[in-house]
Amino acid sequence: MKLLDGAIAAVDHGGSLGRASALFPHAPRPFVDLSTGINPHSYPLFELPATALLRLPESERLRELTEIAAATYGAPSAAHVAAAPGTQILLPRVASLVKPGKALVLGPTYAEHARAAAIAGHTVAEVSDFDALVDADLAVLVNPNNPDGRAIERDRLLDLAARLRAEGGLLVIDEAFMDVGPSEQSLAGDVGEGGVVVLRSFGKFFGLAGVRLGFALAGKLMVERLDAQLGPWAVAGSALEYGIRALADTRWQDDMRRRLAADAERLDALLGRCGVPVAGGTSLFRYLSFPDALALFSALGERGILLRHFDDRPQALRAGLPGSEAEWQRLEGALAAWASRRDDAPKEIVR
Amino acid sequence: MKLLDGAIAAVDHGGSLGRASALFPHAPRPFVDLSTGINPHSYPLFELPATALLRLPESERLRELTEIAAATYGAPSAAHVAAAPGTQILLPRVASLVKPGKALVLGPTYAEHARAAAIAGHTVAEVSDFDALVDADLAVLVNPNNPDGRAIERDRLLDLAARLRAEGGLLVIDEAFMDVGPSEQSLAGDVGEGGVVVLRSFGKFFGLAGVRLGFALAGKLMVERLDAQLGPWAVAGSALEYGIRALADTRWQDDMRRRLAADAERLDALLGRCGVPVAGGTSLFRYLSFPDALALFSALGERGILLRHFDDRPQALRAGLPGSEAEWQRLEGALAAWASRRDDAPKEIVR
Repeated sequence: MKLLDGAIAAVDHGGSLGRASALFPHAPRPFVDLSTGINPHSYPLFELPATALLRLPESERLRELTEIAAATYGAPSAAHVAAAPGTQILLPRVASLVKPGKALVLGPTYAEHARAAAIAGHTVAEVSDFDALVDADLAVLVNPNNPDGRAIERDRLLDLAARLRAEGGLLVIDEAFMDVGPSEQSLAGDVGEGGVVVLRSFGKFFGLAGVRLGFALAGKLMVERLDAQLGPWAVAGSALEYGIRALADTRWQDDMRRRLAADAERLDALLGRCGVPVAGGTSLFRYLSFPDALALFSALGERGILLRHFDDRPQALRAGLPGSEAEWQRLEGALAAWASRRDDAPKEIVR
Repeated sequence: MKLLDGAIAAVDHGGSLGRASALFPHAPRPFVDLSTGINPHSYPLFELPATALLRLPESERLRELTEIAAATYGAPSAAHVAAAPGTQILLPRVASLVKPGKALVLGPTYAEHARAAAIAGHTVAEVSDFDALVDADLAVLVNPNNPDGRAIERDRLLDLAARLRAEGGLLVIDEAFMDVGPSEQSLAGDVGEGGVVVLRSFGKFFGLAGVRLGFALAGKLMVERLDAQLGPWAVAGSALEYGIRALADTRWQDDMRRRLAADAERLDALLGRCGVPVAGGTSLFRYLSFPDALALFSALGERGILLRHFDDRPQALRAGLPGSEAEWQRLEGALAAWASRRDDAPKEIVR
């Protein structure tokens, strides 16, 4: 168990081109940004009605959004869905649904959960063992996990939730990447029982991270409490319009799931050819774990290709999917160059 | 002093066309919506870069926004500015900057302040006397006030802030309509002293309420606490782009202030000709207080023109500005018809 006392400090993330430029000032531009798990094939952009920008968002339109979200994610009803300007802003609010106590985060995982729990006043620790979560007042896990893709079975989650609920505790399951499965392990349909909050992210799968839209699926009373904190116009007009259209478009979603799975397979094959082992992930990102990880991060960065590295795990990397054939080519070239230099390196030392 | 115990319940607002349709089902469409204080002449719309929707908002761009906001609003520096997806979502967070105690709201005013303070755990009361605010742990007022436009002098506010600060209390000043003055009474430049939070709304003056952007100006430590609660990507890409461009465009702002002042004068003259007295307001809305207020609200509503009425003050109305010559004509016609019926009414009774 790792105690996370100073966890309120800001944490490092992928997805910042500003920081990438500072790190690799001589890299060719534009950067190929594989540092996030955001889908590079976004839901098709469309022209918004001007009223989406000009007028206060209508409560009827918000109601439509929560109804569609409930149907798409499989929540019991719209009354079990709180919509917010991104999942991120929900984290401290969700962590505040139980009074300050002991928060346990199943790690390693997305660092903002520990930070949010600390902000909410909890004592926070990271545990690596699922069974240890039962001692928490607030237990948090990501399913499937970011960055390694580890999935936990629904039965085990329901059992944990029941045991936490019996003690007045709360289980938070961040299903940010559940759009690409394994959907049979989702607890979206089980939030009516209480004691569970499921978080769903809109921006990652739909490739619209700038729109800022996320959801908490929870018992009705908890949704009411979250809605009260967010106030009447938390979701911007553009997020309402994109959310309603894209979440209802199950055909696009099915096609995209297939496309992403094929892309992930292609990425694994490419990495494999260059001697980079893939240790896990989802079809929105692949998880790499091997001794030369930092060297690969730097070599690709200098060629303008950004992976995600982790300060506390130098052997780990996360790689998102290239978005175009040109990006695939740049990645392939950079990987091949790195692999051939790596093959040469021992000889140079011997010489 | 009015105790507001049930203040967590949702409050009624203007700006909902859905509710207007239910209230006036036979009214001619489209509605002329004068029920808000939102500028009908929005900042010019422009095409957003696709990255504003696709990518996570960049921290560098957020920094640009807070720098421009500090300069435009007159805050000491960008470090004194927290940017959020609308002022609304900030209210419970700001009310939570002091530990639960006694919140006093100078009323009547915008109802969300009392609700937010209650959510933050405070005992909330509304007071009508400015001097009573000194007894609060959290004192809240709107300057200039919504809906009556009452402005309080900066010297009195600074004195109150100092007295609250000495006791560990906090003064929150909602300057949502300060863009149209009286700007010499703004406390934006004084937040560095601590003990004061100034709220500024982007959507009202710039006519972009759907974009969701608002600011808290405060001491650096309070801004850090608010930023931690909001997380790294609270402001959507579109709000960043509109905020940066519009807040930097001081020429548009100056022109708009003149245009709104002229529009408000025109509205006062029109209301005066129809026997409706104007009791106050700002140049984004006018405040009407007279015995026939509810009758006027209904008569205009049936002609598709929406004013704002207040459940607890049947003699009061708020009227926003028409946005086009066609809207002015419809308002003028509806007001004239109402005035002539009102003049006729006593005769009919006599007959």
